[in-house]
Amino acid sequence: MIAQTPAPPYYAVIFTSIRSDQPEGYDDTATRMQLLACEQPGYLGFESARDGLGISVSYWRDLASIRSWKQQADHLIAQEKGRTEWYSVYQVRIARVERDYAFHSE
Amino acid sequence: MIAQTPAPPYYAVIFTSIRSDQPEGYDDTATRMQLLACEQPGYLGFESARDGLGISVSYWRDLASIRSWKQQADHLIAQEKGRTEWYSVYQVRIARVERDYAFHSE
Repeated sequence: MIAQTPAPPYYAVIFTSIRSDQPEGYDDTATRMQLLACEQPGYLGFESARDGLGISVSYWRDLASIRSWKQQADHLIAQEKGRTEWYSVYQVRIARVERDYAFHSE
Repeated sequence: MIAQTPAPPYYAVIFTSIRSDQPEGYDDTATRMQLLACEQPGYLGFESARDGLGISVSYWRDLASIRSWKQQADHLIAQEKGRTEWYSVYQVRIARVERDYAFHSE
């Protein structure tokens, strides 16, 4: 569930959102987009949680991979649905991961 | 709930975690740490969600602010409790936010 990413540097797209009251079709599309993202060149991983506020972070090799994914045809349609139906507000932040470290209990 | 951050560049600390089965004292400390973080120099904002996987993102002016917060005395104690009691696994990623954009429905 925690994404297994390579050694930095790599990129993160932090997508923070609040859903609208009309989630019809949302879950199906979200799952479909997640599967589609996996197949994109440069995709490194994905993490997501929601309890009121939703935070999804996708990880990418470089900015070119992020741009290609943003322009992918089915994803463009999903983004449009996101704006017209599913989200009341969202924020996208594109960030270069410079350092990371993990903890695992015994 | 979505952090109101200034224009990039700024920094994000992405903390992804899975909790252990012993959450005693966790909620109190999490709230206390969130309030304490607000008061640190260079703090810009905080976002958090959990449904199994937990994702917390804190935003900072620069790497020096992140280092100071990591070394803050009460926060060091909380980090130790995190490792010994509260988390079974976590991953910390420190990233430079280079671009951001927002959507608000009408």
